[in-house]
Amino acid sequence: MANYDNDLTQTFHALADPTRRQVVERLSQGPASVTELAEPFDMALPSFMQHLKVLEASKLVQSNKVGRVRTFQIRASQMEKAKQWLNDQLEIWERRFDQLDSYVLTLAQKEGTDE
Amino acid sequence: MANYDNDLTQTFHALADPTRRQVVERLSQGPASVTELAEPFDMALPSFMQHLKVLEASKLVQSNKVGRVRTFQIRASQMEKAKQWLNDQLEIWERRFDQLDSYVLTLAQKEGTDE
Repeated sequence: MANYDNDLTQTFHALADPTRRQVVERLSQGPASVTELAEPFDMALPSFMQHLKVLEASKLVQSNKVGRVRTFQIRASQMEKAKQWLNDQLEIWERRFDQLDSYVLTLAQKEGTDE
Repeated sequence: MANYDNDLTQTFHALADPTRRQVVERLSQGPASVTELAEPFDMALPSFMQHLKVLEASKLVQSNKVGRVRTFQIRASQMEKAKQWLNDQLEIWERRFDQLDSYVLTLAQKEGTDE
């Protein structure tokens, strides 16, 4: 089943960390270099690079190197995929509620005509 | 910043596991008992209960016990919150692309009138 693929596991794992979510939030506003991304964090560079590695492995971001500067950017397709999974579950859940609603309404109307 | 709260970390962590995602998919279709939820999995009950515990701690699901039966159901608000975070990032990212589009268009038009 496509939903159980490793991709979603890696994506949600990547998002389960406040530093990595802040990096995604920063990159949503446009590409940035490692130096720019690391700047707001009081963290040793190797630890920060590890976070970037997890984000890149999850396909939420991609990077390319020009000269000595590595620039990161968002890969929207993977973020879209995670959102879609959540959306699907919410839609199924809401549809069920709508069905319960109609059922209760039908019962109530039946009750009305029976009186 | 609200986005960095512990809630989203726990929610994404809970979703970073295929068994737990399958449980959420099952519960989207309606409440279910522990026995019903465990049925499709070839897993020792204590391990499975641990997954349910992580899901409940993440506020993606809630449970209540009637007699000896514990029933689980979706808590849509937390799923909605995770979806909203992803949606916000995608919107910011897409808005930036639209702005780049208009900028390139303006440049192209300027180029046109300059000729």
